[in-house]
Amino acid sequence: MRMEFCRRSLLAAWLAASALACSCGGAAFAQSDPLPSWNDGTVKKSITDFVARVTTPGNADFVPSEQRIATFDNDGTLWCEQPMYFQVVFAFDEIKRTASQHPEWRRKQPFKALLDHDMPTLALSGEKGLLEIVAATHTGMTTEDFSKTVLDWISTAQHPRFKRPYIDLTYWPMQELLRFLRANGFKTFIVSGGGIEFMRPWTERIYGVPPEQVVGSSGVVKFEMGADGKPVLMKLPQVEFVDDGPGKPVGINRFIGRRPIFAFGNSDGDQQMLEWTAAGGGTRFMGLVHHTDAEREYAYDRQSHVGKLDKALDEANARGWTVVDMKRDWKKVFAFEQ
Amino acid sequence: MRMEFCRRSLLAAWLAASALACSCGGAAFAQSDPLPSWNDGTVKKSITDFVARVTTPGNADFVPSEQRIATFDNDGTLWCEQPMYFQVVFAFDEIKRTASQHPEWRRKQPFKALLDHDMPTLALSGEKGLLEIVAATHTGMTTEDFSKTVLDWISTAQHPRFKRPYIDLTYWPMQELLRFLRANGFKTFIVSGGGIEFMRPWTERIYGVPPEQVVGSSGVVKFEMGADGKPVLMKLPQVEFVDDGPGKPVGINRFIGRRPIFAFGNSDGDQQMLEWTAAGGGTRFMGLVHHTDAEREYAYDRQSHVGKLDKALDEANARGWTVVDMKRDWKKVFAFEQ
Repeated sequence: MRMEFCRRSLLAAWLAASALACSCGGAAFAQSDPLPSWNDGTVKKSITDFVARVTTPGNADFVPSEQRIATFDNDGTLWCEQPMYFQVVFAFDEIKRTASQHPEWRRKQPFKALLDHDMPTLALSGEKGLLEIVAATHTGMTTEDFSKTVLDWISTAQHPRFKRPYIDLTYWPMQELLRFLRANGFKTFIVSGGGIEFMRPWTERIYGVPPEQVVGSSGVVKFEMGADGKPVLMKLPQVEFVDDGPGKPVGINRFIGRRPIFAFGNSDGDQQMLEWTAAGGGTRFMGLVHHTDAEREYAYDRQSHVGKLDKALDEANARGWTVVDMKRDWKKVFAFEQ
Repeated sequence: MRMEFCRRSLLAAWLAASALACSCGGAAFAQSDPLPSWNDGTVKKSITDFVARVTTPGNADFVPSEQRIATFDNDGTLWCEQPMYFQVVFAFDEIKRTASQHPEWRRKQPFKALLDHDMPTLALSGEKGLLEIVAATHTGMTTEDFSKTVLDWISTAQHPRFKRPYIDLTYWPMQELLRFLRANGFKTFIVSGGGIEFMRPWTERIYGVPPEQVVGSSGVVKFEMGADGKPVLMKLPQVEFVDDGPGKPVGINRFIGRRPIFAFGNSDGDQQMLEWTAAGGGTRFMGLVHHTDAEREYAYDRQSHVGKLDKALDEANARGWTVVDMKRDWKKVFAFEQ
């Protein structure tokens, strides 16, 4: 068994060596396109040129592997965020799923409005109402129980337009980009306004990004010793950190402790992350996904309630950051497209 | 140049493959002792047995590489913490270094006592006084400026007894252990009560632990746009998170998002981290460094003001956790010993 494992390891290492040889700038072997779902053009070239510059030894822009930190927003950058943030859908679904255990919700807003499908009243409850719904569905349980609930939801719930599980709605070209960066020695992180405990149960499987490389918004968590002598972490109804806008560089500093050399977002909530990345000096890559494709996905920017892209778009244009025009630059949006 | 690089990559991959073959449980090649600074005995055996069990494919206790999370306390576990925490020495030294810019400190406690070497008065100022000194030396500057200050200090300041830079006072057997775990597919993290921004500038160089794998106490940090249009992160005088005692499992959950299978500490401040690790089910390793060697280092435990080890020692003995007797189990404590 052991000898067999050794032989397999040697084979695996040899295959890895061959792959390495293939990725040496295409000199030794013909190289296949690392981003086949991206149409050729200035956007794709800005990515591949950047990666070549920072990974070519001896080049003035060379960056050692351990400093190749890449950060990605999640909602609207790695997966769809329309018609509303998927985490909000999760919260709404959770209220409906657990309503029978909470008869008081039948008489209490914003829960009553949600259960009655009374959207105008629900909308009137505003951010305060949404926070109550988030508190009711995201706190008062252990971190482990919450993870299980998220995993149950994400493997069953379906997107209203695409009639597919939400995890099918990741952008295929961005998945290629994550893999391309990792193959070039980058460490890829998610830096999202979404909840950290909502993302971590599935990011490794879906994006290849392990829990310890996920930065997000969080609530206070408390260590408690259970009656059985087994400790648990309880999720409390207090916001601890909002990883959005100016919170993103703070979150990057707190969790990663290094400045990214590559950052990708899609909304004004990502502006400061891109500014923080750009301010690091040396060669840096700042990118935005611009949602321009109502046919294959959605088209929205300056006026959108979800994923508003206004000031960051102006700054990107003024400073020459890369702006992906989804309709023009992506051959396919989702993996399931023909 | 490119062809040359390719050839080198192939060679490197081949060497990696050979190393891999060597590490396959010692079946193919004779294996050298991975922990030569540890004396043979039950403590060393508890470590090597654990690693063999979780890394041998097909074994009932096998743990996939991505789940091999190991967490280490820093002060008293990876480096010395006597006669006082090194970060406190740093704060004291910083007050002295910058005193000429703060004439008001000559008349204000606890600064006056520190500058006058009036230790009884300084001690009287208690935790409140210490927090004032920490605030004066750790906040009111950018994160980048603070990093530079730490690096300057750590390359020049000397320990009063050993007359060596503080970074020479890491425990050699623990350095071996970090390397041994990483060679076996573990991801090694520091989870310390010390300041996260104090550790990150040097942990990669000293321990091989990159900034993104350091968890620690932190203050509030704020994103600000500088007058030159360049953003900075300012360190504010507000405590954000205390990564000690019950805060350690919270910090592990927040930063890593997975439960460790291996944890090492040395004091009551590590008790909950070990309990949290133990509660994960399956095979787990919980270890404590017991400082028993006044000759080569220090001897202290239940009565110590720094690194008090009392309740955690009782729990370790009751539950059969590994307790390192520094005098008995370590052939050498520091790298510089003959």
